[in-house]
Amino acid sequence: MAEPLRRRLPLLLLLLLAAGGLRAAERSGGSSSAMEELATEKEAEESHRQDSVSLLTFILLLTLTILTIWLFKHRRVRFLHETGLAMIYGLIVGVILRYGTPSTSGHDKPFSCSQEDRPFTTLLVNVSGKFFEYTLKGEISPGKIHNVEQNDMLRKVTFDPEVFFNILLPPIIFHAGYSLKKRHFFRNLGSILAYAFLGTAVSCFIIGNLMYGVVKLMKLVGQLSDKFYYTDCLLFGAIISATDPVTVLAIFNELHADVDLYALLFGESVLNDAVAIVLSSSIVAYQPTGENTHAFDAAAFFKSVGVFLGIFSGSFMMGAVTGVVTALVTKFTKLHCFPLLETALFFLMSWSTFLLAEACGFTGVVAVLFCGITQAHYTYNNLSVESRSRTKQLFEVLHFLAENFIFSYMGLALFTFQKHIFSPVFIIGAFVAIFLGRAAHIYPLSFLLNLGRRHKISWSFQHMMMFSGLRGAMAFALAIRDTATYSHQMMFSTTLLIVFFTVWIVGGGTTPMLSWLNIRVGVDPDQDPPPTNDSFQVLQGDGQDSARRNRTKQESAWLFRLWYSFDHNYLKPILTHSGPPLTTTLPSWCGLIARCLTSPQVYDNQEQLREEDSDFILNDGDLTVTYGDTTITANGSSGPHTATTNLDSRRKKSSSEEALERDLGAADHEVTSRGTRLVFPLEYNA
Amino acid sequence: MAEPLRRRLPLLLLLLLAAGGLRAAERSGGSSSAMEELATEKEAEESHRQDSVSLLTFILLLTLTILTIWLFKHRRVRFLHETGLAMIYGLIVGVILRYGTPSTSGHDKPFSCSQEDRPFTTLLVNVSGKFFEYTLKGEISPGKIHNVEQNDMLRKVTFDPEVFFNILLPPIIFHAGYSLKKRHFFRNLGSILAYAFLGTAVSCFIIGNLMYGVVKLMKLVGQLSDKFYYTDCLLFGAIISATDPVTVLAIFNELHADVDLYALLFGESVLNDAVAIVLSSSIVAYQPTGENTHAFDAAAFFKSVGVFLGIFSGSFMMGAVTGVVTALVTKFTKLHCFPLLETALFFLMSWSTFLLAEACGFTGVVAVLFCGITQAHYTYNNLSVESRSRTKQLFEVLHFLAENFIFSYMGLALFTFQKHIFSPVFIIGAFVAIFLGRAAHIYPLSFLLNLGRRHKISWSFQHMMMFSGLRGAMAFALAIRDTATYSHQMMFSTTLLIVFFTVWIVGGGTTPMLSWLNIRVGVDPDQDPPPTNDSFQVLQGDGQDSARRNRTKQESAWLFRLWYSFDHNYLKPILTHSGPPLTTTLPSWCGLIARCLTSPQVYDNQEQLREEDSDFILNDGDLTVTYGDTTITANGSSGPHTATTNLDSRRKKSSSEEALERDLGAADHEVTSRGTRLVFPLEYNA
Repeated sequence: MAEPLRRRLPLLLLLLLAAGGLRAAERSGGSSSAMEELATEKEAEESHRQDSVSLLTFILLLTLTILTIWLFKHRRVRFLHETGLAMIYGLIVGVILRYGTPSTSGHDKPFSCSQEDRPFTTLLVNVSGKFFEYTLKGEISPGKIHNVEQNDMLRKVTFDPEVFFNILLPPIIFHAGYSLKKRHFFRNLGSILAYAFLGTAVSCFIIGNLMYGVVKLMKLVGQLSDKFYYTDCLLFGAIISATDPVTVLAIFNELHADVDLYALLFGESVLNDAVAIVLSSSIVAYQPTGENTHAFDAAAFFKSVGVFLGIFSGSFMMGAVTGVVTALVTKFTKLHCFPLLETALFFLMSWSTFLLAEACGFTGVVAVLFCGITQAHYTYNNLSVESRSRTKQLFEVLHFLAENFIFSYMGLALFTFQKHIFSPVFIIGAFVAIFLGRAAHIYPLSFLLNLGRRHKISWSFQHMMMFSGLRGAMAFALAIRDTATYSHQMMFSTTLLIVFFTVWIVGGGTTPMLSWLNIRVGVDPDQDPPPTNDSFQVLQGDGQDSARRNRTKQESAWLFRLWYSFDHNYLKPILTHSGPPLTTTLPSWCGLIARCLTSPQVYDNQEQLREEDSDFILNDGDLTVTYGDTTITANGSSGPHTATTNLDSRRKKSSSEEALERDLGAADHEVTSRGTRLVFPLEYNA
Repeated sequence: MAEPLRRRLPLLLLLLLAAGGLRAAERSGGSSSAMEELATEKEAEESHRQDSVSLLTFILLLTLTILTIWLFKHRRVRFLHETGLAMIYGLIVGVILRYGTPSTSGHDKPFSCSQEDRPFTTLLVNVSGKFFEYTLKGEISPGKIHNVEQNDMLRKVTFDPEVFFNILLPPIIFHAGYSLKKRHFFRNLGSILAYAFLGTAVSCFIIGNLMYGVVKLMKLVGQLSDKFYYTDCLLFGAIISATDPVTVLAIFNELHADVDLYALLFGESVLNDAVAIVLSSSIVAYQPTGENTHAFDAAAFFKSVGVFLGIFSGSFMMGAVTGVVTALVTKFTKLHCFPLLETALFFLMSWSTFLLAEACGFTGVVAVLFCGITQAHYTYNNLSVESRSRTKQLFEVLHFLAENFIFSYMGLALFTFQKHIFSPVFIIGAFVAIFLGRAAHIYPLSFLLNLGRRHKISWSFQHMMMFSGLRGAMAFALAIRDTATYSHQMMFSTTLLIVFFTVWIVGGGTTPMLSWLNIRVGVDPDQDPPPTNDSFQVLQGDGQDSARRNRTKQESAWLFRLWYSFDHNYLKPILTHSGPPLTTTLPSWCGLIARCLTSPQVYDNQEQLREEDSDFILNDGDLTVTYGDTTITANGSSGPHTATTNLDSRRKKSSSEEALERDLGAADHEVTSRGTRLVFPLEYNA
């Protein structure tokens, strides 16, 4: 630190092991122990300096990206999305680092030796009586040894993939869950689940098989220089099937595009991240335990499905449980008197979900997603006003930084990653395969869903979903996780190119595509679409559309009727300060427990209803209507509220509306908006 | 990930190098390459799982700490401070990890060999035709090899010291700068600088020399088993001289203790962190380049002083420059329309200061401290309202988490750190030395300062400062930075014990000590002390106290009069949207530049004054008064405002008060508090 411009010491010295002995590379310098200590200190200093520089590179990259994003937003440039921009800057810096930085040291070639055993994770080396510990960094392909030797800086900017999984992904996914518009999400839940689970599995399977064909072809023409198993192809399918929520979310949020389309795309991409993770780890688990059985095996396949379901439900449970624990803690302690402590606790609990799931062998991403949803639904209500805005803002900033960091890093990785294997045949094959895989996933599934859905997914929506299947951070994170073998390296390089292509083309093309497909934009996502200017309905040219819409609600209703009443009567009162007192909802023999669990606030102000609640009450309103009259006469045009339907729904939500009315004095503005939101869905039945 | 309870694979396999050959430890498992790949995958999985568990350990520790902190705050427990609590939890978990976790694998003893050369940072090992890269983790003392072998978990929770320096310290220090109460800080700046610079140097030198005596003694009685140079002793002095701002800040903030005492202690501890860092790196730099010259050398000493001054001013400049750049960027772009981008930029720029300074060979801590002050003074004014609260809250949360993490980690390190050397003589010597060092630093310096100060530092303040010299995160971070040699390991272990002792004793004893010394608490730190209940003055029994107080202000005034007018007339208008237009303050020939640099807002509302400004205007108010009348007749009792003095000061700050009055409609509440703050200091002259 003290003397910045001290000549760079040769940092990367190779100790080469021969079968018969130890051969050390030559090193200039003194021989006394004092000198050695000094040299070690200087080296540590130099290493620290380089760490700083590599981090600084990323930070400056991000700063540059932010400034350019601002410029783009300011000038309303839409042809390139901010994530694409981050990647371009990453690419440029990667090129500079790759070709612009001097080599740190030049050494003689590594000594060849053959040793039968496999490498160890830790080496303990005894040098002049002192023991030094070395840890395994990874394999280096023989052709790349020179690069490794020569450019220390490149090694520094190549992050540990663990960083992606443990540090960068959780805030992104948590934010997605925490800021999820639950209403639209749940309204389309059936379709979302179908797209995410079935669709991703179909896509994975199709891509995997197509790629296996490509690999066979490559073997035939002699383009393949190492092993590439069937399971590797399936793994590639799993990696590349995950569409990215990031860009979709950003663009659709900005344009206020159709809420249903948004919900479908966002829901699919958020959940299929999770599905892809679980799929890829299932495939790894399903890899044969014996030799030479990287082929397909029915028993192993079903085992894999079992593993898949186990992991998914386990992760889901873990996320929900942590969310519930946080809700209970924030409810029963008076932590809200200290917003800082509260925010910190909230942050830590949410992050620990991720780590807990990973430590138990589940997938953290799934867990953290459902944790986010649970936190938004329950814990958020218990937080102090300050903590609410603080947690939202904190995760927003973290999400933003992590996301841009990942995209910058992707750009950088194209040039700084040491083990790229670009195979033109494989890459072209992969592009064709993901196109076909996406098509085979969207169109047939939409057709099947439309058979059941009254509110059809229109062709324009299907085309948009087909187009929006861009691959992003998750595919990259999955691919970089294991780059030890030839096949994985090739998969990583191809994934990187696919991510670049889709982010640039799809990210930039979303706006033109939306207008070309006549999908309406400029909708307030917090409101139901006003029935008068619903271009989607107009496009379908279906007069009975709103009738269908209502029946769609009825259909999805049975899924949630039970859940909602359970949630409203038991979970909300237990986990938050709102809802009816448990003493009224629980059977009388539970009196003591009910009194313990119900917070005193509930008795004082049963009316305490937060925004999240009104979201759900809205759903309730919809549901109630569907109980009451399933034969609907009016079409989608707005009309005056009918007293009967109003009363009908009021029967269920009387307490909540009373609450709103009582609240009026306290927060005029908010209640007004709540009011309109409560009234809106009833217009369909006028 | 797929199968959680798979048996733990032996992870730590030792490859032992003998002089004549290579001897590998045995390993169970198949020999086929497919099996090997699978095993590697499983191992990577297992390693990932362990990473998660180790992070989870810390997060659960922090969660527990937060809950207990809340309980303590709720019950108003004061005998143990939260940082002490975090350490205790850390200790408990450390004990569990140390003695409670099973050994992962048992291996045969390492093979002894002697090799003349020193260890390399990277090993390249050729195993069956594939190259694997290993990086140096550090030296292991021969006695500890068994522990290393047996407990992989302990290694996992032992963090890289770089993490402390690059990730955890910057937010803590930045927050200190960003939330600094500038007024009290600047009022005592002279004394603070004296304590921080002179005092720390004196303390370092005294402790270093005392410890050298202890080391000599140890050599005499045969307690020393390896080399311990004079420079090592001085380094220990530098490491242990840094008092910690963390606990002082927390306790004093909570109790609202005397603002001047708070300013002195906080200012000293913040700046002496920086001084200690610079001192310790100067000492490393000043270590002889030849052999056997770890003794004192006058030329080298002056070189060291030069290095010290160079590093300090360089770091200061770097911090200020980054702050100014951020201010310019936020002023001249319309980034405030996108608060998220703005916050992200602010965050990145502030962090990059740290890294930039480290990369250039300066000290990041000093840079980030002054960056924080600059950001608070200029950039803060340019931010959107949302970004202001967001940046404050973001750094508050980060600071809180980082701080508690460091203290938990310290507790943990006592048991999980592998290279402890506890020497009772050295430890007792160190405790005596820091006591004497602190005494030799506080009392003589206070005496000298009191010669110059009109507003004396009372005995009770001196005793409190003597008592509050607790060592914390910075000492730990400095000590853990280099634990390669015997002397450094002993220093690290001793530092850890000193930190424990001082945090527990001093942290817990602050409140009793304050009341024992009759130092008043419950003062609003945003206000000047109301003269009526100034126990400090009462204790001094000095009737002319307030007269002195005003003359103190006059004295410190000359330091800032020039600076303030420069800042107000040129820097503020250039860097923010406030202050007088440059067109009026710059000479006419600079007209073009002035017009370019002055933002249009300034012309529209020259009155635009933020809270930070009123802080400074308050200073200005004080200064104005001291220009006007230096002979003061009244004593400290409060009285009605005299019209003349009011007018006197109004002459200077007329525009600002007009601004405030005009603002009244917009934000009643805030303006009222501003108003009182503006009026308060004038009471002294009533």
